[in-house]
Amino acid sequence: MHAYRSKNCAELNLADVGETVRLSGWVHRVRDHGGVLFIDLRDHYGLTQLICDSDSPVFDQVEKLRSEWCIRIDGVVKARDAALVNPKLPTGEVEVYIKDMEVLGAVNGDLPLQVFGEQEYPEETRLRYRYLDLRREKMQNNMMLRSDVVASIRKRMWDQKFREFQTPIITASSPEGARDFLVPSRLHPGKFYALPQAPQQFKQLLMVSGFDKYFQIAPCFRDEDPRADRSPTDFYQLDLEMSFVTQQDVFDTIQPVLGGIFEKFGGGRKVDDVWPQISYKDAALWYGSDKPDLRNPIKMQVVSEHFAGSGFAIFAKLLEQESTEIRAIPAPTGGSRKFCDRMNAFAQKEGLPGMGYIFWRDQGEGMEAAGPLAKNIGPERTEAIRQQLGLGVGDAAFFLGGKPKAFESVAGRARNVIGEELGLTDKDRFAFAWIVDFPIYEKDEETGKIDFEHNPFSMPQGGMEALQGDPLQVLGYQYDLACNGYELVSGAIRNHKPEIMFKAFEIAGYDETEVRKRFGGMVNAFQYGAPPHGGCAAGIDRIVMLLADEANIREVILFPMNQRAEDLMMNAPSEPAPDQLMELGLRVIPQD
Amino acid sequence: MHAYRSKNCAELNLADVGETVRLSGWVHRVRDHGGVLFIDLRDHYGLTQLICDSDSPVFDQVEKLRSEWCIRIDGVVKARDAALVNPKLPTGEVEVYIKDMEVLGAVNGDLPLQVFGEQEYPEETRLRYRYLDLRREKMQNNMMLRSDVVASIRKRMWDQKFREFQTPIITASSPEGARDFLVPSRLHPGKFYALPQAPQQFKQLLMVSGFDKYFQIAPCFRDEDPRADRSPTDFYQLDLEMSFVTQQDVFDTIQPVLGGIFEKFGGGRKVDDVWPQISYKDAALWYGSDKPDLRNPIKMQVVSEHFAGSGFAIFAKLLEQESTEIRAIPAPTGGSRKFCDRMNAFAQKEGLPGMGYIFWRDQGEGMEAAGPLAKNIGPERTEAIRQQLGLGVGDAAFFLGGKPKAFESVAGRARNVIGEELGLTDKDRFAFAWIVDFPIYEKDEETGKIDFEHNPFSMPQGGMEALQGDPLQVLGYQYDLACNGYELVSGAIRNHKPEIMFKAFEIAGYDETEVRKRFGGMVNAFQYGAPPHGGCAAGIDRIVMLLADEANIREVILFPMNQRAEDLMMNAPSEPAPDQLMELGLRVIPQD
Repeated sequence: MHAYRSKNCAELNLADVGETVRLSGWVHRVRDHGGVLFIDLRDHYGLTQLICDSDSPVFDQVEKLRSEWCIRIDGVVKARDAALVNPKLPTGEVEVYIKDMEVLGAVNGDLPLQVFGEQEYPEETRLRYRYLDLRREKMQNNMMLRSDVVASIRKRMWDQKFREFQTPIITASSPEGARDFLVPSRLHPGKFYALPQAPQQFKQLLMVSGFDKYFQIAPCFRDEDPRADRSPTDFYQLDLEMSFVTQQDVFDTIQPVLGGIFEKFGGGRKVDDVWPQISYKDAALWYGSDKPDLRNPIKMQVVSEHFAGSGFAIFAKLLEQESTEIRAIPAPTGGSRKFCDRMNAFAQKEGLPGMGYIFWRDQGEGMEAAGPLAKNIGPERTEAIRQQLGLGVGDAAFFLGGKPKAFESVAGRARNVIGEELGLTDKDRFAFAWIVDFPIYEKDEETGKIDFEHNPFSMPQGGMEALQGDPLQVLGYQYDLACNGYELVSGAIRNHKPEIMFKAFEIAGYDETEVRKRFGGMVNAFQYGAPPHGGCAAGIDRIVMLLADEANIREVILFPMNQRAEDLMMNAPSEPAPDQLMELGLRVIPQD
Repeated sequence: MHAYRSKNCAELNLADVGETVRLSGWVHRVRDHGGVLFIDLRDHYGLTQLICDSDSPVFDQVEKLRSEWCIRIDGVVKARDAALVNPKLPTGEVEVYIKDMEVLGAVNGDLPLQVFGEQEYPEETRLRYRYLDLRREKMQNNMMLRSDVVASIRKRMWDQKFREFQTPIITASSPEGARDFLVPSRLHPGKFYALPQAPQQFKQLLMVSGFDKYFQIAPCFRDEDPRADRSPTDFYQLDLEMSFVTQQDVFDTIQPVLGGIFEKFGGGRKVDDVWPQISYKDAALWYGSDKPDLRNPIKMQVVSEHFAGSGFAIFAKLLEQESTEIRAIPAPTGGSRKFCDRMNAFAQKEGLPGMGYIFWRDQGEGMEAAGPLAKNIGPERTEAIRQQLGLGVGDAAFFLGGKPKAFESVAGRARNVIGEELGLTDKDRFAFAWIVDFPIYEKDEETGKIDFEHNPFSMPQGGMEALQGDPLQVLGYQYDLACNGYELVSGAIRNHKPEIMFKAFEIAGYDETEVRKRFGGMVNAFQYGAPPHGGCAAGIDRIVMLLADEANIREVILFPMNQRAEDLMMNAPSEPAPDQLMELGLRVIPQD
């Protein structure tokens, strides 16, 4: 017989009754029923009930076992009494009577964290003893899910004739808007490598090298300030790039991959077939966000005309200023004063003076529009608004005004809250949307400086010609995929022509020398016959978070850092040895 | 029609004649046959011949094209004249008459490196312009091979119910005998993370976490001094670990994976079915190496008895000293003075005084043993040696003596040279051998200090009991896989019991405090019910090197560093910005 197991802990059933088996695993739970010991033995695959009484030659040793001891047993499979059958367990019809037992790994001292049961522990405890935390069922499931999702992504990419290539990890700085992690060079003291923020330049170089279709489950490194939904050090993305493609080709490539993943691992939640393409501008207007949650049916509308010159002086005056608008958030079924007041309070908490509203109620002989706003603008304008928004009795609408940039994001959050509170948002669904036509540039309101809105590598729509006009009007072949309010994917058709690239950077205030300094590898490459190319990157951690229905990224990472970017289990970061610093030619500046 | 291509450059054949097609790719070669231009258009998939004459509306532009311009063409597929058919090309029966052409990416200036043809370039040029070097057919093939090998490894591991997990890259120092790359922490100035030399501790922690079967195509980081057959910064390994297994289980797992890979990608070279298990001791004796090349049939033997007290005074005296031996390298078909002298010269070049030899030749009335050695020891001893080695007319044997440690490696190299020069080594074959029973400890001859021979994490055979006796006699459950003279895999059954681990380290002179300091994460984990576990790691770069029949690791890596650990294309390492150093709390010590 094998030294450790003839079966795993999920395999035994009635067909094995009478067999002598060997099992190994962890003591999940021990119950002492008056001299008869019941032990749930757990391994990666499942649980098997062991039984031992004083007739067993190893009773004395078995009696000493405690939770999480790792043991090997030999025993005989028995059918459970009908009353004791556990239909929820694949092995629930049998138990194993222990004949021999060996302790493979004892537990010394108290367990800092129980594996059995639902007890909650502080995150510091869970991370310090991650190897125990990971034994818990939910964590095992999350990690298996993650592994299976990544494997499935790979298979789907291969099926589409993509090849995976590994790009360098110890490399040059690749500025992507975040801070680099630096790695001091020992052979070149005083010089540093950097860990890549993304394989952006390398994947573009692969296209210049003629590889046509690249992907990678790529580690990315960003020295970020702590935030709940991202790792402070590194994360993984499905990174892909294709040559000789248009934006639509990229969409047609990634949709079946991600759609398939959500179908397969979504636990039966509905996955939308249609992934609408919404312009950045429309997304801002309709949803107040460039990563809208389309499970929420609410679509905002411009209602300025009904307030211009109306009796609601605040809005009427606002509209006399340039570039202002009034927008409505329709709230079907939200037609009660209580709800409207709650939303008004929400807006105040968000830093606005408040949020005007109208709601419609049944008044016996017809509909009545209630709320101070309706009174101020009068019944005709109120009715016009109602008709535009398609609302009726029992519904409400909320209004925000000003320069759109100033209130759009609050409007978006209000839309989320309204959808949630009124139960309009369909929780059992994954709703996707491509956000397209991002502007290439944005203007800093204070300094008036033009800078890249998103990513400096995108091809402007209209190419060089477009860059001759008003920069703020230039749209890019640049896109995000939103799912349930998260940005899952970001990508672009790249600017592969050196002259257009230099012009694009010039507009943002970077001269050719600066561009060559920052992106020299790529810019040099583009002068030797660069193909048109594009691609995208999808956040693995975020995809798994959505599938596992977790709100914290650390629930889907094996050994995450805490929010102070420390690994408590391995004790990182730590003080280097003096000779290590010496070899690197570095000195630590004493901190006060 | 698609913006860039209706077909790729490997797809067209006679069935497409008459069709209008769109192709994109690179100008591989232009030939001007008196006003008729022939262009080989190349993409990732293949070549298609384009043709253009002055009747074409774009002749003037096409005439200006040069090598490596990236273009899009529209044209009509024509059958080639029978005499011009190229049977070696999938598209060799057709050509495309150019009707329209667009330059997608021009080449500015001269090409520093030609893609077409077999010209050799200095490595610096190839690495600086890697994106051009990678367009060459051999490099495309090597990189595709690498990608396909890695994909196939993954599939084979999944088929064996392994899951892939990503372990941290920014983590704590994990001493494995090489130097760490350090990463300064910005949030904790003066403290450093380290990049893992291997995921050793994490994979063991995964076993303690109950994951049972783990693998990873894992990046490993070692700040190594330059050497031709390894990358100075990082490399990839197939890393795997299993719980509740014996050494044989690990062998049975990895053999079908690697055997299958060599079968599939070995280009028809024979792959041995039987992978013998050879003890470290026997490997040293028989092959003079712990990574023997078994394609070479030569097996060395101990022949001390024939020289003890013989007339060959050098060996006879040597054997009077303790722990000395005489070993023979049989050299079938090596029986000529010319060859024997050449091998003697080889030994002198390796720093030995020479290498004694005997060779056997036909002397009309029988066999004659020639060479000074044979004369010195006389015919009886010579004949006994011949019989022991199973040699005959036309064969030779070489002899080395002393303390085995002192000459074993030279003997091993001599065996290689003999096998090569005599054509005994079968080049078209992959021969594998497991090297087992490595000693846990070795003694420093000078200091007399006992230290780990290999890897401190291996379980000693005989466990705690074995550690009570002579440390130099203790063997470990530790193994390598050799293939054609390379070490492809290294692994062990791990020491998962804290008390045995502390004892093992104590023998090597590390007290408990030191062990906890160095391997705290793992040692702490082992006290909470650690399962027995073991695994191995296989070098991906080396596997691909063998399959691609390349001698330089940089031929199978996309964007390698040069031997001074510099990336010439991306300009790494480089000087950091002063504010980056400031943020990290570091100062560079000026070098003189």
